[in-house]
Amino acid sequence: MIGKIKELLIGPPLRTQEMAGTRLNNIRALAAFSPDALSSIAYANQEIYLGLVVAGSVGLAMALPIGLAITGLLIIVAVSYYQTIQAYPSGGGSYIVARANLGTLPGLMAAGALMIDYLLTAAVSLTAGVEAIASAFPVLWSYRVAASLALLVVITLINLRGMQETGTALSIPVYFFLISFLAMLLYGAVKAVLQGPGIPPFAPPAAIQPLSTLLVLRTFAAGCTALTGIEAISNGVPAFRPPESRNAGKTLIVMAFLMGALLAGSIGLTQYFGVVSNPQETILAALARTLLGTGPAFYIVQIATLLILAVAANTSFADFPRVAAILAKDGFMPRQLTGLGDRLVFANGISLLALGTALLIVVFNGDTHALIPLFAIGAFLAFTFSQTGMVVHWLRLRSAGWHLKALINGVGAVTTGTAVIIIAISKFVNGAWISIFLIPIIVMFFYSIHSHYREVTRELTLHGLPPSLRPKPPPRIVVPISGVSRAVIEAVMYALSFSHDVTAVYIELEPGKSVEVKKDWECWLPDVPLVILDSPYRSIVRPLMDYLDKIDEEINDGQSAAVVLPEFVPARWWQSLLHNQTAFLIRTALLYRRRRFGHERVIIDVPFHLSR
Amino acid sequence: MIGKIKELLIGPPLRTQEMAGTRLNNIRALAAFSPDALSSIAYANQEIYLGLVVAGSVGLAMALPIGLAITGLLIIVAVSYYQTIQAYPSGGGSYIVARANLGTLPGLMAAGALMIDYLLTAAVSLTAGVEAIASAFPVLWSYRVAASLALLVVITLINLRGMQETGTALSIPVYFFLISFLAMLLYGAVKAVLQGPGIPPFAPPAAIQPLSTLLVLRTFAAGCTALTGIEAISNGVPAFRPPESRNAGKTLIVMAFLMGALLAGSIGLTQYFGVVSNPQETILAALARTLLGTGPAFYIVQIATLLILAVAANTSFADFPRVAAILAKDGFMPRQLTGLGDRLVFANGISLLALGTALLIVVFNGDTHALIPLFAIGAFLAFTFSQTGMVVHWLRLRSAGWHLKALINGVGAVTTGTAVIIIAISKFVNGAWISIFLIPIIVMFFYSIHSHYREVTRELTLHGLPPSLRPKPPPRIVVPISGVSRAVIEAVMYALSFSHDVTAVYIELEPGKSVEVKKDWECWLPDVPLVILDSPYRSIVRPLMDYLDKIDEEINDGQSAAVVLPEFVPARWWQSLLHNQTAFLIRTALLYRRRRFGHERVIIDVPFHLSR
Repeated sequence: MIGKIKELLIGPPLRTQEMAGTRLNNIRALAAFSPDALSSIAYANQEIYLGLVVAGSVGLAMALPIGLAITGLLIIVAVSYYQTIQAYPSGGGSYIVARANLGTLPGLMAAGALMIDYLLTAAVSLTAGVEAIASAFPVLWSYRVAASLALLVVITLINLRGMQETGTALSIPVYFFLISFLAMLLYGAVKAVLQGPGIPPFAPPAAIQPLSTLLVLRTFAAGCTALTGIEAISNGVPAFRPPESRNAGKTLIVMAFLMGALLAGSIGLTQYFGVVSNPQETILAALARTLLGTGPAFYIVQIATLLILAVAANTSFADFPRVAAILAKDGFMPRQLTGLGDRLVFANGISLLALGTALLIVVFNGDTHALIPLFAIGAFLAFTFSQTGMVVHWLRLRSAGWHLKALINGVGAVTTGTAVIIIAISKFVNGAWISIFLIPIIVMFFYSIHSHYREVTRELTLHGLPPSLRPKPPPRIVVPISGVSRAVIEAVMYALSFSHDVTAVYIELEPGKSVEVKKDWECWLPDVPLVILDSPYRSIVRPLMDYLDKIDEEINDGQSAAVVLPEFVPARWWQSLLHNQTAFLIRTALLYRRRRFGHERVIIDVPFHLSR
Repeated sequence: MIGKIKELLIGPPLRTQEMAGTRLNNIRALAAFSPDALSSIAYANQEIYLGLVVAGSVGLAMALPIGLAITGLLIIVAVSYYQTIQAYPSGGGSYIVARANLGTLPGLMAAGALMIDYLLTAAVSLTAGVEAIASAFPVLWSYRVAASLALLVVITLINLRGMQETGTALSIPVYFFLISFLAMLLYGAVKAVLQGPGIPPFAPPAAIQPLSTLLVLRTFAAGCTALTGIEAISNGVPAFRPPESRNAGKTLIVMAFLMGALLAGSIGLTQYFGVVSNPQETILAALARTLLGTGPAFYIVQIATLLILAVAANTSFADFPRVAAILAKDGFMPRQLTGLGDRLVFANGISLLALGTALLIVVFNGDTHALIPLFAIGAFLAFTFSQTGMVVHWLRLRSAGWHLKALINGVGAVTTGTAVIIIAISKFVNGAWISIFLIPIIVMFFYSIHSHYREVTRELTLHGLPPSLRPKPPPRIVVPISGVSRAVIEAVMYALSFSHDVTAVYIELEPGKSVEVKKDWECWLPDVPLVILDSPYRSIVRPLMDYLDKIDEEINDGQSAAVVLPEFVPARWWQSLLHNQTAFLIRTALLYRRRRFGHERVIIDVPFHLSR
């Protein structure tokens, strides 16, 4: 039943051999790895605008300088990741690079930061996407949470179906977005040149607070979100066609160029035409409206924004489970995350991400602006760690031209590091503190999980003092019975088939009930001893436990008595609601109770299926 | 841990011997059985008022006649229950009487009606109580649901603690209510005689609709809720001091007299003084305010109302679980309902009632007026069945004066039956339909449960063809392993201690993994055959199942191979989140899978406890 529904939603299971090892050409690779990075301008732009508008037109005048500063930062980060790609052709995610060069702790911190980053990418992309489309269809504005969650469900299902489906489908929205946006910016530029600003169509908003340095810094910090996702390519080098590194490098440069063009272009035009937005639309939407009017062109742009953002969320779904799986393989995350689901994807990782994202969307009420402060921290921490890692890498390697390379990554590390500090300080109260406190907590989790796994292997290992292979004594059997029935007799007969030491135990809940049980027993299984235990408190488990411990102590033959549980299994699930689950209770109690005398207590289920 | 909290809330477990068999003198018996009946006037009054006020002063003039009609009905019902008490000294609940005289189906219908009645008594008493107190403290009005639920929790806990505590505590509020109310009515009567009505303090409300017959009937129907709970004494005859029947009978008469006095008195005064109520108070509260002003006396009356209603809800908690237990004993309800909890009360029944009541309160948003239409139906159906049952009883018995007795119960049956029809028709659309449809559904449940239990006993019984006591062949053992570890070796050693036919099975999820496992196996347990199964779809359960079925078919020695599950148990519960619960999955799959070749598959858990 459940299997049917599952198959309907995510398709039939796939054989392990069908594991897809397809390589991507640069065109499709760009589509696969860039959405996160490209879509960032949607919210980065918005954040810069919201950050400055409070200082009125004076503030908005700072938009372009800040935009250019961020573009500068973009170039630095891009170049240093270009080097990472050359150095780690097998894929150089922040975790790998940081752990390889800086050690486990920094590696795990990078990993923690990265996971938060992915979580927030998913959440922010979805909410921003919904806001983009709600700017075109204001009625949606009040259903943002519901809409975001609906989008999340769709993307989760697509990913659970597996990459085979997602692969090509993705490139369409990406190029649709690129073309429509570049076209719009070009058209805007031409318009600007031919007409000039003209009289600005909007009254410049009144300043609520002065243009302080803190304000500028905070805006810069928020704008830094434009860079999130730029590391994607360096994670996925192996997916490129050989020569992997060269292709990946080329693609990175193209992507960085596009990011810069989109960011600087859109901010420039917004400022040039003095665009301002009303509370129920994004600044990008406002720009689009100013340039294109509210005709079809405008709607196309908004839909393109929604699509690219949805795809961006999707990249989180591709990366998060992979990182989680790597961590799980190294024993820092639950083992289940390494398991490939029916469709050859890390189903558990995907589900985990989906849950986390849903939580974020609900808690922050689908409001991108509220999520952003948590966002940049994670990404830039990961940047800093991996860049620092690269510096160490070059210092160790001392390969040709290592001075320059180390210098470049060094500049990357320092600038991204500074960005982290700026973000942390200027956005601390707005929510950055959440990420800042979360990362160490996550790292602690990593470690406690790791130590648990180490402990398990230590206790299960066959190295060191080997387990005794001395044959065990023949088992002693105790059969708790609730009366004399077929199920009970089946169970006892089974016990007798391999043990000569079988005792039945009846726990008397209602005084006097045992008499009749004893009578039946005598006439069916006279040779099997029956022990009657009374239970003043009407508990089954407690007296049984005490009895078992008692006889183990008395006989003390180097093992515990095994318990045979006659268990009848109803034909339909709801029928089990009609029976007190005594067998289940006993089993759980026996299984999870620490053993008093070292020896383990074996539990033997003898099922008895009811035919209807 | 959980045990601790439980003990804190409901107290330590009690020994079965401590079962309290205390008898009640008539004073305490009245307190124990009357609250439900007495408190009814609180909402009955309100319903009559709300029913008539829409027809303005013309309508309200009908209040007294209707009130007297209901009082007449009350007398008839009381007398016929008086006879039931004489006839069933061992307790004559509607279910017992109806089943004994009319047969199982009518008995079950009565039982179903009764359960709905109890459920609604609990819900309505709580909401009405909250409304009474909210009339004194209007701020509560907007928190009615929360307040009702809070009250529900308290009453549930008290009842889970057990009767020992509740017993005496109850009589206080009951007599507090009786005294304060009778005093108020007396005072009102005196005032009426001395002053006369004077100019009515309120403007008579304008009529919204004419005074139709339907309106009068609907009001009468709603007013009938005043009788709910009158049957309580007949259920509880054995609780009285000997001579039980005589004492119970006396108490019933006193109770009926009090009910009549309260109902007629309050309605009479309300009409005499032309009292009307505002939407945020009950008519009883309005009457109290008119008579006593808003001094302490007024608050005392409101608190008394809340208390009696809370206690009334409590009687549902005493009766519902008892009826449920009787039904469960007869196999019409889940067996668990017969089990006495730690505190010697039917804990499951109490919890079930609490859940149902909470659901009603939430669904109907804590609004008494919305619940009432569902209410009277159940009670009056139960009345009708038990009265009809009594008629048959007398016709069968033909004891001295059976003519008269049969006649009296006959009148009771007819009148209550007519009431049922009036209620059903006049209140159908307002919610009576819910009860009407619910009862047959509940009866169907009763039957399906019953037939399941019959089937179970049929399949488990030792009568008819006896089970074979021929010794079973020695067990064959299959041990699924996930690798070679201490836990696995322990399990295999145990299997070897009682079987010479042990096979280990390794399911290969990652291609190639088996090589190393095979190597380890050779050097540890060379004499035990190891079978490698590959699993193209990465499922553990499926290939194992197929293998087991295959060998069972091949060997076909009249039994299925038993499965030994090496299962390591982590030291702390959260640690089990870090392991894929393979053993659990296999056990569940084996246990709930219908057996293909008749023979049951035995499951043997060999636990291996991790020390930390």
